[in-house]
Amino acid sequence: MISATGIPQTGGEVRRLIRAGGFRQPTSGVAPDHVQANVAILPRDVAFEFLLFCQRNPKPCPVIEVIEAGQVEAKISAPGSDIRTDVPLYRIYKGGDLVDEPDTLSEWWRDDLVTFLLGCSFSFEHALMRNGIDLPYYGTERNVPMFTTSVQTVPAGPFAGPLVVSQRWVPENKVVRAVQATSRFPAVHGAPVHIGDGAALGIRDPFKPDFGDPWVPEDKSFVPVYWACGVTPQAVAMASKSELMITHSPGHMFVTDLKDEDLAVI
Amino acid sequence: MISATGIPQTGGEVRRLIRAGGFRQPTSGVAPDHVQANVAILPRDVAFEFLLFCQRNPKPCPVIEVIEAGQVEAKISAPGSDIRTDVPLYRIYKGGDLVDEPDTLSEWWRDDLVTFLLGCSFSFEHALMRNGIDLPYYGTERNVPMFTTSVQTVPAGPFAGPLVVSQRWVPENKVVRAVQATSRFPAVHGAPVHIGDGAALGIRDPFKPDFGDPWVPEDKSFVPVYWACGVTPQAVAMASKSELMITHSPGHMFVTDLKDEDLAVI
Repeated sequence: MISATGIPQTGGEVRRLIRAGGFRQPTSGVAPDHVQANVAILPRDVAFEFLLFCQRNPKPCPVIEVIEAGQVEAKISAPGSDIRTDVPLYRIYKGGDLVDEPDTLSEWWRDDLVTFLLGCSFSFEHALMRNGIDLPYYGTERNVPMFTTSVQTVPAGPFAGPLVVSQRWVPENKVVRAVQATSRFPAVHGAPVHIGDGAALGIRDPFKPDFGDPWVPEDKSFVPVYWACGVTPQAVAMASKSELMITHSPGHMFVTDLKDEDLAVI
Repeated sequence: MISATGIPQTGGEVRRLIRAGGFRQPTSGVAPDHVQANVAILPRDVAFEFLLFCQRNPKPCPVIEVIEAGQVEAKISAPGSDIRTDVPLYRIYKGGDLVDEPDTLSEWWRDDLVTFLLGCSFSFEHALMRNGIDLPYYGTERNVPMFTTSVQTVPAGPFAGPLVVSQRWVPENKVVRAVQATSRFPAVHGAPVHIGDGAALGIRDPFKPDFGDPWVPEDKSFVPVYWACGVTPQAVAMASKSELMITHSPGHMFVTDLKDEDLAVI
């Protein structure tokens, strides 16, 4: 149901609005507490190796669901959905180059395409906020700082490349809580990969992110904490220069029927 | 190194002994605290769908590592290993029928075979025992009781079938601890799927297992606790009647270099 504020409250409601052409904006904040997913669509001939890449790199590439070739419905996480119409904005890459940014896949869909829905950081950010850890960029135009690290992912077939991490500054006395709160959610990147000086990850300047906006903490006692980031599989898939690859447009996610808490392992 | 008692203490030591022909017995109790794996080897043309089956059914089918077609080394969990020689006893199935039980794969190996190493219950049984939960069959000729349930797995391609569970009777005051201790290890079946009356799983008589040996608890206050079982993917793969399928012989596992604690998520 749509709330008094006009914000859709469930995954199904968001998807129906998008499909009807009534929602073409970023999905942050819609259907609160529902799991949103990164989308990566690839031809069947590289699907095994991409799934294997995800299995080998579960922190940056947590798989929520895979839709097989010839099918368009996320039967497990979003019954009744259609991946060709239910994302607000898509990006089409050919040989690694962006060639289109359509609002449906009607012109691009092929029956040999396999869809990967991968965990996104919204769910674990909710967990951080519920635990009193402030995320100043949340709900603003600004984005979390992200860094390409010197740590290599474990390759599979044509899929290889560096780990990308997101950075959040956490008050010293909340660092343990940040680890605990996110460890519960391995399906959305899980526990941090690193706490403190980013030099171990090859990060020279913690205030010069490769993507997103710099975050200068209000207090010198804040500690930088790094989590594996969903940009990793997108960058790796793009670098593989697959003949065709389709993703969501940044921030314009696929909203599932799962609740954040459904993904908690403990 | 081999201990004074003659029991190999590491995965590498076990594998070298097996490869040299000096170890043809079940692997229970060797290389204590090292992760042992179920083995399922299938042709590449069904590999994507089998990996997807595992992704959809992580409790019965936790993937430790996948060795791609054309390769024989488990590079991540057992560097230097060779899957063709490092398992004490194999089983060969053609079209779902057992046709051979060799001690190497020299006559059966093909370059299109993909190896799946799946978590085995030994690791989480260690966790139960460390937490004071007694497993009377452990280290004996007897086996844990296993039941084919009325719960269906989530299918993928030709892979489908019922969930198989193992049963352990836990003192009432240890049931919470049993959940906690095994929840730490999702890569080896993780938390139980059910506590108490097996009717919810379609189990009519808790003392008449479909596989393994009956377990009658010493005390009426003991509660039956059911975990997803690694027999599930084997049964499902066999039922798919794949042209060729190779597994370990029951109890004769692949021993990795990973320690049980490496698999803990918290």
